Amino acid sequence: MHLTQDAVTNLDQRFRAHLINSLSGFKSANLIGTQDTEGNTNLAIVSSVFHLGAHPPLIGMIIRPHSVARHTFENILEAGCYTINQVNTEIVPQAHQTSARYEKHESEFNATGLTAEYLAGFSAPFVAESRLKYSVRLREHQHLAINGTELVIGEILDLHIEDKALQEDGFIDLEAINTVAISGLDSYHSTQKLTRLPYAKKT
Amino acid sequence: MHLTQDAVTNLDQRFRAHLINSLSGFKSANLIGTQDTEGNTNLAIVSSVFHLGAHPPLIGMIIRPHSVARHTFENILEAGCYTINQVNTEIVPQAHQTSARYEKHESEFNATGLTAEYLAGFSAPFVAESRLKYSVRLREHQHLAINGTELVIGEILDLHIEDKALQEDGFIDLEAINTVAISGLDSYHSTQKLTRLPYAKKT
Repeated sequence: MHLTQDAVTNLDQRFRAHLINSLSGFKSANLIGTQDTEGNTNLAIVSSVFHLGAHPPLIGMIIRPHSVARHTFENILEAGCYTINQVNTEIVPQAHQTSARYEKHESEFNATGLTAEYLAGFSAPFVAESRLKYSVRLREHQHLAINGTELVIGEILDLHIEDKALQEDGFIDLEAINTVAISGLDSYHSTQKLTRLPYAKKT
Repeated sequence: MHLTQDAVTNLDQRFRAHLINSLSGFKSANLIGTQDTEGNTNLAIVSSVFHLGAHPPLIGMIIRPHSVARHTFENILEAGCYTINQVNTEIVPQAHQTSARYEKHESEFNATGLTAEYLAGFSAPFVAESRLKYSVRLREHQHLAINGTELVIGEILDLHIEDKALQEDGFIDLEAINTVAISGLDSYHSTQKLTRLPYAKKT
């Protein structure tokens, strides 16, 4: 099937949102934990977290500042720190429910039943049920004028990982901790390993 | 297991690369097709393609301009256009092999056996074996001084999708076309659908 740009432009807005959100392929599923200076906690599922670099360890994400993620963005700017918690198969419904439009004083932890925990003296809350999580310090944010989104770049600080997932070469077996992937706006997937391939060389 | 920032900093560089690349969760697997003005084609696997927005349809990716993806970045700047082709289970080894360090005059299409095809008059090559692909026009690129990477933002033009994958509401069933996910630097995964969840509302 060939859909021209004009045809896509003329699609119903909701149909188009599902379609375009499917094009990038599988996405990461992460919960962003934040807290404002008054101690109000917030938790938001984000499918746009991406690896930015390992030297230094940096992580990026795209936030729509006027969406349901607005409190997350405000808290990150206010506190300068946040946590990233991978979503696993056991907490998919609760993780998804964080995308409902709660008020700022309503904590998604309370609303969804996920458990806030504080680790290693870090001021933003982690998700106790997540099996791979890390603390992050805001390094910079850039307004992307092209569509009003914000690119948020953070420095990875401390890692909290279930022992059994970490392999000898540093690779983390995400399947051992049931990490899920997202496709489109609302589809959740478990995975099955096909292969690990060696560093590619010219033959 | 708790790994402090200092502990991570002191890890062996290769170990750290595997570790940090695992933290974001599952990544998309896409082949970027480009062509310079002399007609040299290039194909590069990229795990950093991400959804940026549906209105207008925009797609982002992170490129390390001095890495093996340098020709891809040069061609995008030169030609202003590229294709994005989802990787499926049938072409994982060939897709991975595009990450070897070929010279600019060596086409990864020839080197890997993937087939270049030209669709709907678009000047950059598609991957015939890919079952979901689209043409993209460069809109902007930003140098991220924090680690020397480039954020490349493109406008999604025409879509080429296998009919059977497109569902009634616009959602694309990526499993119907065997799209794979990546974890870490080198691990490839098929997926199994867990659930699609309705738009979340406060209860």
